[in-house]
Amino acid sequence: MLYVVGIGPGNEDYFTKEAENALNSTDLIVCYTGYKKYVERFDKEIYVSGMTKELERVEYALNEAENKDVALVSNGDATIYGLASLAYELNEKNLHNVTIKVLSGLTSASVCSSILGAPLNHDFAVVSLSNLLTPLETILKRINCAVESDMVLAIYNPLGKKRKEPFLKTVEIISNYSKDRNIDYIVGIVKNAGRNDSEYKITTINNLVNNLDEFMQYIDMSTTLVIGNSNTKIIDGMMITPRGYMSKYE
Amino acid sequence: MLYVVGIGPGNEDYFTKEAENALNSTDLIVCYTGYKKYVERFDKEIYVSGMTKELERVEYALNEAENKDVALVSNGDATIYGLASLAYELNEKNLHNVTIKVLSGLTSASVCSSILGAPLNHDFAVVSLSNLLTPLETILKRINCAVESDMVLAIYNPLGKKRKEPFLKTVEIISNYSKDRNIDYIVGIVKNAGRNDSEYKITTINNLVNNLDEFMQYIDMSTTLVIGNSNTKIIDGMMITPRGYMSKYE
Ligand SMILES: C[S@@+](CC[C@H](N)C(=O)[O-])C[C@H]1O[C@@H](n2cnc3c(N)ncnc32)[C@H](O)[C@@H]1O
Ligand SMILES: C[S@@+](CC[C@H](N)C(=O)[O-])C[C@H]1O[C@@H](n2cnc3c(N)ncnc32)[C@H](O)[C@@H]1O
Repeated sequence: MLYVVGIGPGNEDYFTKEAENALNSTDLIVCYTGYKKYVERFDKEIYVSGMTKELERVEYALNEAENKDVALVSNGDATIYGLASLAYELNEKNLHNVTIKVLSGLTSASVCSSILGAPLNHDFAVVSLSNLLTPLETILKRINCAVESDMVLAIYNPLGKKRKEPFLKTVEIISNYSKDRNIDYIVGIVKNAGRNDSEYKITTINNLVNNLDEFMQYIDMSTTLVIGNSNTKIIDGMMITPRGYMSKYE
Repeated sequence: MLYVVGIGPGNEDYFTKEAENALNSTDLIVCYTGYKKYVERFDKEIYVSGMTKELERVEYALNEAENKDVALVSNGDATIYGLASLAYELNEKNLHNVTIKVLSGLTSASVCSSILGAPLNHDFAVVSLSNLLTPLETILKRINCAVESDMVLAIYNPLGKKRKEPFLKTVEIISNYSKDRNIDYIVGIVKNAGRNDSEYKITTINNLVNNLDEFMQYIDMSTTLVIGNSNTKIIDGMMITPRGYMSKYE
C-alpha cells in the first residue's frame, strides 16, 4: 500500500490527524532530503533523495510498496503540483499494481492566505510560473485570463535563479491591466510559510514595478505570491478580499 | 483574541495540529449549528447559530473576543469562501479592536482532489456558483476564462434547490468548449467529502449533459465539482492531471 501524504508547507503544526496516523503506522517513509526534518519524529526508516529526483523517488516508493506500507511525503497538498499524479502514472506504466491512497495536506496558497489576512476569500486561480514542464505561452494565457476575469491569483514557483522571464512577463501583464483599469492591485508575498523563518510583505503592483530589483532579490522558490482582485483591500494592515456579506445584508 | 479556525470539510481526521491546539486552549467556541458535532469533543462552551446567520455569529464572536479567547469555526479553509474576511471587516467597522489570527484548514477542493485521484495536479481555478453575493455574469466570465485557458476548474456551491441557472449555464459553457475542441472533459463529483456518507462519481461532460436530470438530483450544496483540463485522464479508475514529469524526463 502506498500513502501519498501531504504534510503542509511547513512544520508539524500543519499536519492533519490523518497524516499523523498514516506516518505513525507506516513501515517506510520516502521523502525529499529537505523534508526529512519534518518526519524524523515518527521514528521510522526514512529513504531520502534530492531535488529533481522525483521520478526515482516515486519509483522507489512504488517498488517498496509492493510488499509493505510506504508513506511518500509531499510538501503542501500532494495533489497540487505534488507527487500524487506521478505515483498514479508510474504505478500504471511500470505495472506495480500497488493500491494508492492520497491524503490531502494544506496547500501553500491556503496557509499564505491566512498569513496575509484573507485574500483568497473569493474566486481565485492558482498558477505555477515554472516553464520547465509547461510552455510559457500557456502560463501567460492563464495569468491573463485570471486577471481579465477579476479572479484573485495565487502564484507558485514565482522565480528561479535562472528562470526570470515568466515572472517579468507576469508582472507586465498585471501592470498593464492595472494601468488600463486604474486599479493598483494589492500584492501579497509570503516566504517560507509555516517555517521558523517565515516572513511576508504586502505591497501593490505599482510599488513592485517601481522597485523591481529589490523584490526580485526577495522572492525565491519558497515564496508564494497572491495578487488581489478589484475588491481586495487592506484592513488593519492585512490583505482582505470581501466575500460580499456586508453589502448584501446591510 | 479571536482565532478564526478552518477545520477542513469533514470529520476530525482533517483537523490540523494548530487547529487542535487552538480549540483546546480557547474559552469559547462559536460555530454553525451543523458543525457542533465536530467540536463537542473539546469540551468547551459552544455558541451556535444557523445558516444565513453569519453576520450575527461573527459579530457575537468579536464581542466575546474583546475579553476572552474565542475560536470562530469555519468549515474547510476559513479564508476560502469562509468567515475570515467578514471577521476582519466587522472588527474594523464596529471598532472591536480585537486581535485576529486565522488558522488555515483543508479546503474542500484539496480533499476532493485526493478522493478523485489527483485532478488538481496542475494550474486550476476555484469558482463558486453562488450568485447571491456575485453577479451571474461575473461568475460565467470566470468559468469561461478558466476553460478557455485550459485550467482545471473546481466548482463550489454548484447547485441550490432554487438556484439552478448558474449550474445550467456553466454546463453549457463547458459543453460548448467540449464540442469546439473535440475534448470530452472529465468531470469529478464529490459529495460530503471527509464525512461518513462521503461518495463520488467520475464522468465526462457529455455524459453529464446526456443525463442532466439524474446528475442534478445527485449534486447538492455539499458537493464540489472538478472539471479536468485537456490533459486530465483516467488511470485505474481515478481522475489524474499529469504534472508533466514523465514527458520531460523520458
Ligand atoms: C512544486 S510546488 C509544491 C506545492 C505544494 N505541493 C503545495 O501544495 O503547496 C513548490 C512551490 O510551492 C510554494 N511553496 C511551497 N512551500 C512553501 C512555503 N513554505 N511558503 C511559501 N510558499 C511555498 C512555492 O511557490 C514553491 O515554489
Ligand atoms: C460556503 S462554501 C465553504 C467552503 C469552505 N470554506 C472550504 O474551504 O472548503 C460551501 C461549499 O464548499 C463545498 N464543500 C464544503 N464542504 C464540503 C464537503 N464535505 N464535501 C464536498 N464539498 C464541500 C461545497 O461546494 C459547498 O457548496
